[in-house]
Amino acid sequence: MAVEVANNMKKLGQDDPRRIVHSLRVGVAITLVSLFYYVRPLFDRFGENGIWAVLTVVLVFEFSVGATLGKGLNRMLATLSASALALGVDQVATLFDGMGQPIVLGILVFIIVATVTFMRFFPALKARYDYGLMIFILTFCLVSVSSYQDDEVLEMAYERLYTIIIGSFIAIIVCICLWPVWIGETLQNKIANNLEKLGNFLEGFGREYFRLSEEGHSTDEKSFLHGYKSVLTSKDKEETMANLARWKLWHYRLGFRHPWNRYLKVGTSTRQGAYKLEDLNGYLKYFEIQVNTHRVPKRNSRAMHTDLSESGKALKELASAIKKMRRSTTVNFHIANSKIAAENLKSMLNTSLWENANLREIIPTAAVGLVLIDIVRCTEKIVEAFQELASHARFERMDGVSPSNDV
Amino acid sequence: MAVEVANNMKKLGQDDPRRIVHSLRVGVAITLVSLFYYVRPLFDRFGENGIWAVLTVVLVFEFSVGATLGKGLNRMLATLSASALALGVDQVATLFDGMGQPIVLGILVFIIVATVTFMRFFPALKARYDYGLMIFILTFCLVSVSSYQDDEVLEMAYERLYTIIIGSFIAIIVCICLWPVWIGETLQNKIANNLEKLGNFLEGFGREYFRLSEEGHSTDEKSFLHGYKSVLTSKDKEETMANLARWKLWHYRLGFRHPWNRYLKVGTSTRQGAYKLEDLNGYLKYFEIQVNTHRVPKRNSRAMHTDLSESGKALKELASAIKKMRRSTTVNFHIANSKIAAENLKSMLNTSLWENANLREIIPTAAVGLVLIDIVRCTEKIVEAFQELASHARFERMDGVSPSNDV
Repeated sequence: MAVEVANNMKKLGQDDPRRIVHSLRVGVAITLVSLFYYVRPLFDRFGENGIWAVLTVVLVFEFSVGATLGKGLNRMLATLSASALALGVDQVATLFDGMGQPIVLGILVFIIVATVTFMRFFPALKARYDYGLMIFILTFCLVSVSSYQDDEVLEMAYERLYTIIIGSFIAIIVCICLWPVWIGETLQNKIANNLEKLGNFLEGFGREYFRLSEEGHSTDEKSFLHGYKSVLTSKDKEETMANLARWKLWHYRLGFRHPWNRYLKVGTSTRQGAYKLEDLNGYLKYFEIQVNTHRVPKRNSRAMHTDLSESGKALKELASAIKKMRRSTTVNFHIANSKIAAENLKSMLNTSLWENANLREIIPTAAVGLVLIDIVRCTEKIVEAFQELASHARFERMDGVSPSNDV
Repeated sequence: MAVEVANNMKKLGQDDPRRIVHSLRVGVAITLVSLFYYVRPLFDRFGENGIWAVLTVVLVFEFSVGATLGKGLNRMLATLSASALALGVDQVATLFDGMGQPIVLGILVFIIVATVTFMRFFPALKARYDYGLMIFILTFCLVSVSSYQDDEVLEMAYERLYTIIIGSFIAIIVCICLWPVWIGETLQNKIANNLEKLGNFLEGFGREYFRLSEEGHSTDEKSFLHGYKSVLTSKDKEETMANLARWKLWHYRLGFRHPWNRYLKVGTSTRQGAYKLEDLNGYLKYFEIQVNTHRVPKRNSRAMHTDLSESGKALKELASAIKKMRRSTTVNFHIANSKIAAENLKSMLNTSLWENANLREIIPTAAVGLVLIDIVRCTEKIVEAFQELASHARFERMDGVSPSNDV
């Protein structure tokens, strides 16, 4: 049991060493913020309110810089605005006396809490400010409720605000200074890796399919056939990352104004492509079962192979262009080739060129051909999405090529 | 602007009135817990520690009973265990004196915080105990760090613990007593609705496709063609719901032991089916463009139509069976029909029955035929997943039918 846990831990750390680094960073930040308690002059200055700084570090420190910044800013702004509102409510309540005061306070708290809770359902607010809205409710309750028994409400709100600011800054600074993880880069890599997985599949499928149809057996190494599966359900993760990436206010290349939405569009087109691959994969299994019943006519075979390998190359080229943040000069070439191959395939499917062949052999091949034509269309869409991304994100142009020619 | 916001709010409320109810419930719970401050005898008893109860309600109160219970239990257990550990650490640190004490305290805090932070990366822990682990770190820091300046550490930990227990119970009780939302039912409905969307698509596609191939035009009402799209990316949401549903320790039908994993399996098979539909949908668009070039031979047309409508009926039947938590007696009938249709289709595609037809007309139809055969296979898998669910969840049997015959 203990050995198993230790092995699991080791594996988790090896899979992504940034996890170990993150754990150590949190330890450092907490130890730093504890100095408010351990160092006499600091404790004399801040007293027990220092604990809010500790809590803030625990709550705000996240894996990536974007998420930490987002939570830190949310927490600071929410505390500021909620404290202000609570002080206002407190002023209104003091106009009443005796039993009136807690009743008015209760009614106002009820109305504001219910309204802000409802606001958390707005999709636009939920995506970026959910944590802030929660902290708003929390601080508002804290200040306005305790104002009833505590006369130094203003001072309390003030102390809470600046210990939270100190805690947030400690978390943000440690997060940025010690081995920072930029979520934007993670998103960029993820989108690029997904494209690469699709490219690998297409090239691998090309080899596999034609080995099957020509030699009647397939190779054993087929990991490339499963790589794309994770792309099918990547939507939520990509959206979360894009939301977090927006919190990065500055960064040498990937700042606040970087068009993260465009990455999502590339991601969406990639997913569309992955659905088509799911299909091709189904056909491959189908053919393996009845491998002897189909032979692809040579001419089609050539067109299909070109179609697959050129689309695959185009996608892999895009993946490396995204990673390097460059425009690509060779993508257009591969796309043009794959389009020609698709046109050839289409005319072969439409005209009755195969009429002397056996229908049983043709139909599965024709089905694959139709999917391939679709895949070329998908690849074009991915390239379009990439082009928009490249122009909005001002990707570097390759030297000596005019803007209208490159992608 | 204000009008727009108001309209958005109205729409959000109308889409799911439970959102308004939820906002009001949170208001009620917070107002209730504020009594600790407003009512003199209660305040005299709890003092300023009552604020932890208020914070707990804000942090723990979630939309569904499952989530609230999960967070409440996480928070209580984490506070209990972290307080105990912090008191132990405090004891160790007091063995040293002078500068030794804060250094030993700092080192122990660093080690424990880093370890628990790393534990949050374990997928199994992350899914269900992430909130608890965070509260563990938080409480541990709070108690052990303040122990250095505060001698009444035991009392502080104790007060914190029981105000948190009171807050959690208020949140849980309000959440269960006022219009509860059971996440398990939401998951059940979602899985059932997804199946229904697939069923609607298949039936609708059948109508549409044969109207196209026979009359050459399609109807305008096509919303059913897009319903399935949300199924494609439903994975993360379903998994989150299943995790939350497990927190329901008791419920008249859907308790702790309900096999939520089996619902996820039905969901996965449904998604596999949705990928195939994505494909069929692609063909439909393709045919609309070149509608005049293809006519489906009558005999195939019949087999395909049966295939589609029987699969569709089977899926819709499953959907209503899941909603009612009953086994279904008619699913097997529809599945058998669709399997016969698929066999017919397969033999027509394999034998050269169509040899006198024009190839240009046959190939697209053949492609659709192959996908349809796949869909029947998918539907069978969904039925298998449903069968396992039904037997593990002890779905009600329909009267008078022996267990071996029904699904």
